[in-house]
Amino acid sequence: MSDPYGLRRVIKPAGVLPQRAESLDPELPLGEDELLIEVESLNIDAASFRQIEKAEGGDTARIAEHIRRIVSSRGKMHNPVTGSGGMLIGRVAEIGPKHPAAGDLKPGERIATLVSLSLTPLRLREVVKVHPAIDRVDVKAQAILFASGLYARLPTDLPETLALAALDVCGAPALVARHVRPGMRVLVLGAGKSGALCCAQARQSLKGQGQVIAMDISPAAVKRFRDDGLCDAGLAVDATRALETMQALQSATGGELCDLVVNVASVPETEMSELLCSKDGGSVIFFSMATSFTAATLGAEGLGKDITLYMGNGYVPGHANLTLELVRQVPAIRRLFEERYTGS
Amino acid sequence: MSDPYGLRRVIKPAGVLPQRAESLDPELPLGEDELLIEVESLNIDAASFRQIEKAEGGDTARIAEHIRRIVSSRGKMHNPVTGSGGMLIGRVAEIGPKHPAAGDLKPGERIATLVSLSLTPLRLREVVKVHPAIDRVDVKAQAILFASGLYARLPTDLPETLALAALDVCGAPALVARHVRPGMRVLVLGAGKSGALCCAQARQSLKGQGQVIAMDISPAAVKRFRDDGLCDAGLAVDATRALETMQALQSATGGELCDLVVNVASVPETEMSELLCSKDGGSVIFFSMATSFTAATLGAEGLGKDITLYMGNGYVPGHANLTLELVRQVPAIRRLFEERYTGS
Repeated sequence: MSDPYGLRRVIKPAGVLPQRAESLDPELPLGEDELLIEVESLNIDAASFRQIEKAEGGDTARIAEHIRRIVSSRGKMHNPVTGSGGMLIGRVAEIGPKHPAAGDLKPGERIATLVSLSLTPLRLREVVKVHPAIDRVDVKAQAILFASGLYARLPTDLPETLALAALDVCGAPALVARHVRPGMRVLVLGAGKSGALCCAQARQSLKGQGQVIAMDISPAAVKRFRDDGLCDAGLAVDATRALETMQALQSATGGELCDLVVNVASVPETEMSELLCSKDGGSVIFFSMATSFTAATLGAEGLGKDITLYMGNGYVPGHANLTLELVRQVPAIRRLFEERYTGS
Repeated sequence: MSDPYGLRRVIKPAGVLPQRAESLDPELPLGEDELLIEVESLNIDAASFRQIEKAEGGDTARIAEHIRRIVSSRGKMHNPVTGSGGMLIGRVAEIGPKHPAAGDLKPGERIATLVSLSLTPLRLREVVKVHPAIDRVDVKAQAILFASGLYARLPTDLPETLALAALDVCGAPALVARHVRPGMRVLVLGAGKSGALCCAQARQSLKGQGQVIAMDISPAAVKRFRDDGLCDAGLAVDATRALETMQALQSATGGELCDLVVNVASVPETEMSELLCSKDGGSVIFFSMATSFTAATLGAEGLGKDITLYMGNGYVPGHANLTLELVRQVPAIRRLFEERYTGS
């Protein structure tokens, strides 16, 4: 029977999806539409790792025991305090004949899961090592991926931490690729790793016609983007100050506003800036988890502006490959990721 | 000087938009791009009215005084406790020559404002009568509408309370009209007034090809929609129970999911139902103010579904006329609104 969301793995409460379940059953046998992973490492969500680290006074042995306790009671690495999970890296151990990857993956291939650990059945045999600096735990464990569960083959030509950092935000540039057309003026708010990928993709999609403007509160981050050619123009402004932000944009564009605004800044209360910087008839894609639904919708209505408001779905078909290709093909992106995520 | 958002009216703090201001200056003279309204009634936001009513023990004289105090200190009817406003009805008193309505409206015409009272400069001379049953206060007052401020001419062929009830939710059917194409299967979650308008508009936009399904927790509300021909099928389910909701939909459609899901239910925790009921490649429009940004985005990613997630902007050009036309042209809508909003 088809069970793409892993309902058969839910122990309690009955009738919920795995993410909302208190506990999952991670035991074998494997369903014919499931995939079994021999896990090497858990990349614990940063908020979750900090909470556990603090609760255990930073003692790695106690952190390991804390993680063991969670997984043995819940059947998944789903921190009950923070509600968050993380992702994992491992090798394909077995592929059910009806799993969508059956024709694609082979046993032994290294993959990363792109769905949260908060919904991934996990059987933990041993915590091998805790790496507090990178929120990572090396383990001996087995995990199960459902038919709907997203994964990415780990590239062999890129350092692992770099590939993971890119895969972590791969939905944003993929959605930029879907919405940007030549001739547009695109504003990317937030000059971090996600912003860099969005700028690079926007430039590619514009094919030389249009403009990419990067915006961040940090003048150094904006200068870096400009010097690296990731954007056509850069603005260092505080986007929680909506009017100043709009005025800075208009000064930079001769009074024009943007066709598309992409928010990847991890800061609350920037919605009004994005709305003011968007043309009437334009669009805003909200990727920031700090986005307020009511601030965005009531804000647009209050301005009387016809703006299409997208919430950034982290899944877009092909998003992992698109993002890894940006890292490979755009030297500025590669350098930026290498500096931040490989310590080189 | 052009000032479409009314910045000149902000007293403090400096540099914010009128909605975030502590106080506005509602005094004359009128700016050349402003519109002056002789106000008849304030329709106070329900949450705001309840708070004031409770604080004053339900005494109408004290409620009136409470409202006077707010307006005299803030220059707008912006409840500092709830943060909400409402809308107003009045007659056009004067139109600045550069206001966009200069060629459209004439002094003496009755209009309703479609922007919140929380950003509308208001000078209150007298509270004439308080109507607690309908959250309305009859007043003698003057209000100012900025160039960006939305309004609707009050129709003379419809009862006023009925027209106001329809205008209150006019963004939803207008956005449905933008997104529905013949051949689609459309699910409308929430069988209230907004749901009725969305269903009626979806049926019009489908031009006989496709299907409209209404969903609500109330079997009576769903039956009413079906009996009135507002939908092709109706489902009475609890949409906070995502799996049961999806299964009910699939039973009704022979296993199919929907191209477009519209959420106008004023209930939290229905995001997963909307995502599960949408096809891969489909869209969801979230109109409910109870929508959680993180539940919607992380939910879609967790399901591994390529769904376009729209936040419902309450402003769509032409939304007021489109909605009033639905009330006029669709007998079932007219009856439903008459029953609920005119006491007939």
